[in-house]
Amino acid sequence: MSRQMVRPGGRSARVQESVHTAVRELASEVGRDALTVPMVAQRAGVTPSTIYRRWGDLQELLSDVAVERLRPDTAPRVHGDMSADLTAWAEQFLDEMASPAGRAYIRDALLGDPDGGNAGQCSAYAADQIGLVLTRATEHGDETPDVETVMDRVVAPIMYRILFRPEGLDAAYARSLVADVLARTGP
Amino acid sequence: MSRQMVRPGGRSARVQESVHTAVRELASEVGRDALTVPMVAQRAGVTPSTIYRRWGDLQELLSDVAVERLRPDTAPRVHGDMSADLTAWAEQFLDEMASPAGRAYIRDALLGDPDGGNAGQCSAYAADQIGLVLTRATEHGDETPDVETVMDRVVAPIMYRILFRPEGLDAAYARSLVADVLARTGP
Repeated sequence: MSRQMVRPGGRSARVQESVHTAVRELASEVGRDALTVPMVAQRAGVTPSTIYRRWGDLQELLSDVAVERLRPDTAPRVHGDMSADLTAWAEQFLDEMASPAGRAYIRDALLGDPDGGNAGQCSAYAADQIGLVLTRATEHGDETPDVETVMDRVVAPIMYRILFRPEGLDAAYARSLVADVLARTGP
Repeated sequence: MSRQMVRPGGRSARVQESVHTAVRELASEVGRDALTVPMVAQRAGVTPSTIYRRWGDLQELLSDVAVERLRPDTAPRVHGDMSADLTAWAEQFLDEMASPAGRAYIRDALLGDPDGGNAGQCSAYAADQIGLVLTRATEHGDETPDVETVMDRVVAPIMYRILFRPEGLDAAYARSLVADVLARTGP
């Protein structure tokens, strides 16, 4: 991912920010499918070759932008215990990812991603959020499943169904996944 | 999916078969990324407009071809009991889907798929195979999990990790998923 090569505050970071901003603005103005590299370059005030050099093509640029949009901006809220916190997180995760915007970002993140780095980053965001919830619970003395188990039992089914099997995706489904993975652990 | 509109043996089916064959041949000859609609049309002996009319664009055509390649050509093999059959199926499923060819087909199936029909078909193939294994077990009097539970607990984690989190995907992982979902059921 180009983002990982970027030094915060450096010229490279400023170029990336202006290009990402141009993509977000133009996508809302003319629609994502009407975007072209020259259009984005003009809005961002860079040359098209700058974009091709860093991102390779439009799809990789859209993939980078999508990963940025999928990054959680807050830690999971505290609702009381591990079950309540994880349930609330899973309901919100399903709600956001299954939304039209969420589905579009997931597709973009997967598609322009030859090295798989962007998809891995999306997965790391979810694992980090779950890790925060489980660490809190451990600090309260709860027995918790490990992060990878929650990824397999809660995140994977939600993401798999969004991509491959979208029927019946609702908050009750998210709650049942959390209840099931906590059934064998918990306080 | 265009395939669903095709009457077996009809002209439409013959065109589809020749176009799919042309894609598979040319992909192995010049590589998937070098394919163009005119190239495929010439090899298949149809006009490019025939392809555009039915598939819309190359990406949707590649998506249809990918789904055909992902269709299982045999029923899951019988190894003795539900645990052995489901374990063998899951190991083979992971092996095939995680291979470079499998990953490319999954990508293509997801990519050129505006209506989600092709991804749904891939998921239906897996559900059908699992259904066969579980039905056999039920006929032997075993208590079995339902198909959707196996989709959530075995297929979803495998596919999620292939797409988003590819580290540590091996036969042992597939076996552990099956052992875990059967731990609460079985004879």
